[in-house]
Amino acid sequence: MKKKQSLLCCAVIAAAVLAAAPVRAQFAKAEDAVKYRQAVYTVMANHMGRLAAMAKGERPFDAAAAQASARVIETMSHLPWEAFPAGSTSKGLKAEPWADAADYKARADRLQGETAKLPAAAASLETLRPQLGATGAACKNCHDKYRNI
Amino acid sequence: MKKKQSLLCCAVIAAAVLAAAPVRAQFAKAEDAVKYRQAVYTVMANHMGRLAAMAKGERPFDAAAAQASARVIETMSHLPWEAFPAGSTSKGLKAEPWADAADYKARADRLQGETAKLPAAAASLETLRPQLGATGAACKNCHDKYRNI
Repeated sequence: MKKKQSLLCCAVIAAAVLAAAPVRAQFAKAEDAVKYRQAVYTVMANHMGRLAAMAKGERPFDAAAAQASARVIETMSHLPWEAFPAGSTSKGLKAEPWADAADYKARADRLQGETAKLPAAAASLETLRPQLGATGAACKNCHDKYRNI
Repeated sequence: MKKKQSLLCCAVIAAAVLAAAPVRAQFAKAEDAVKYRQAVYTVMANHMGRLAAMAKGERPFDAAAAQASARVIETMSHLPWEAFPAGSTSKGLKAEPWADAADYKARADRLQGETAKLPAAAASLETLRPQLGATGAACKNCHDKYRNI
């Protein structure tokens, strides 16, 4: 029994170390992770705003600019997920992404699935509009649970 | 003479409007441009740091991770230049990028030339090291004139 407990304890520690390793490797402190993920979202939101302005007709449609923004959004959509180490709370978080890794990953995967289609869709206004909507819905799907805006 | 002055005046105004248009189109306020460009540099610096850690042997070399970081850096290197509208001073700026557009563009072009080679170079540690050095030198070339760090 003692041995079993000891093994279990080792497994728990090993799992915790493995889970923490990628975060520790990229970010020296939790504040660094917060700063990085907020920067990623700032860039992503700016380019979502550019596409939205074209989709709504507030700005003339420009396929090259739209596709460039779409590629930035796709790139950004892969970055923030490693930047939520346990305990890295920040203003606006209403749930802890690190508390349910499977749920959190499912929401990240959905976003990445939609952003992957965005550069091709951004070639015309007719295809941009629905794909921007689907991407925005994937953003919202995560914000609904994790973010106070 | 009066007509000539008036025409000249119109031309100056038109040039100013045209020059300001791309900035106004992307950023409602100068503070938005500052926030955006600082976010871009935060993401870029983070990934330069990841590559530097591998190049210096502080972290094991991982070709896939290195190439992913290199692609992020390349993408980021195209973004900040439109985000320096005239008068958008911020902490750390020691010269005004908008005051000498040709000089500033030459420095941006040099960086983009180097970051374009980074994803392929990041396939091995032997090719990553010199290309990361060249990229860092291109960063420094701009910081030397425009940034207090």
